[in-house]
Amino acid sequence: MSHTINQKQNLILRAKRIQGQVEALVRALEEERDCSDILQLMSAARGAMNSLMSELLEGHIRSHVLNGKHRPTSQQVAAADEVIGMVKSYLK
Amino acid sequence: MSHTINQKQNLILRAKRIQGQVEALVRALEEERDCSDILQLMSAARGAMNSLMSELLEGHIRSHVLNGKHRPTSQQVAAADEVIGMVKSYLK
Amino acid sequence: MSHTINQKQNLILRAKRIQGQVEALVRALEEERDCSDILQLMSAARGAMNSLMSELLEGHIRSHVLNGKHRPTSQQVAAADEVIGMVKSYLK
Amino acid sequence: MSHTINQKQNLILRAKRIQGQVEALVRALEEERDCSDILQLMSAARGAMNSLMSELLEGHIRSHVLNGKHRPTSQQVAAADEVIGMVKSYLK
Repeated sequence: MSHTINQKQNLILRAKRIQGQVEALVRALEEERDCSDILQLMSAARGAMNSLMSELLEGHIRSHVLNGKHRPTSQQVAAADEVIGMVKSYLK
Repeated sequence: MSHTINQKQNLILRAKRIQGQVEALVRALEEERDCSDILQLMSAARGAMNSLMSELLEGHIRSHVLNGKHRPTSQQVAAADEVIGMVKSYLK
Repeated sequence: MSHTINQKQNLILRAKRIQGQVEALVRALEEERDCSDILQLMSAARGAMNSLMSELLEGHIRSHVLNGKHRPTSQQVAAADEVIGMVKSYLK
Repeated sequence: MSHTINQKQNLILRAKRIQGQVEALVRALEEERDCSDILQLMSAARGAMNSLMSELLEGHIRSHVLNGKHRPTSQQVAAADEVIGMVKSYLK
């Protein structure tokens, strides 16, 4: 996962935070907590997951689609930026 | 969470399965696994989360929106079914 | 469509605006316009559609799921508000 | 829009079909048709729009992100395929 070496710690931290959110959800279900609370927990975990997903997709596009043997042209970078912007808006 | 008493065990099981998926994702990030593998794990966890979310929303609509002091009419039940069908298709 | 009688004109206006956006998209495709422009037009039309969709779903929930022979309790209204809030956030 | 020259007619056809669906929606709102019918029309138009959107994004990725001055490597093509597969599954 070359493209995330730099941000690796940040990604792990975010994934661990989601892990904590899902654990809280499991507990809330086990304790038969209020349905609204459960939906809130679920919704927060899902939002964090979408956000991490779009981060990973961005990294994948930048490192593995855009960069091969040769440097991408500025047009390619601009096109990638557009795709990334749209993917991010869908995963909100 | 009255509306999930019956299916409570099933929901807990699914939430725990998601917990396992997120743990696998954290490990994959820590082990710097291949980016494609990480995206697959992420995507599977996200799918499972969306599916649990739509299940919880369905329960919430049926138990808390539809059912109050009085029994809902068959028209209300039919309208709820439509909403649930659409919510499920968006959360796929 | 009882629940939209009041807002009827507003909904029609919004649907017509989407119609205009889709017509602009068709023209842009026919004129072989720049790919980025086409994606922008498409994306704007899709956003407007999602927004109208969530409006219609909200109306459907409030008028047809919540209201039957009897008035809904305040708990039912609160539960409906939660569902509507979540549906809206997914359709953004 | 070089990347869609071949499929240009197909894309225009699909955009025109969406135009027809949105026109039907406007009419249904004007005629105060049944709320369920309106939601169905809306939902079908939205689905067709998502499907066209993912087609356009795929074309954009393949033609403008992947292809620059040099031919992409097979690894880049494989990475693009993964991104496209995920985008398609989100826009369903």
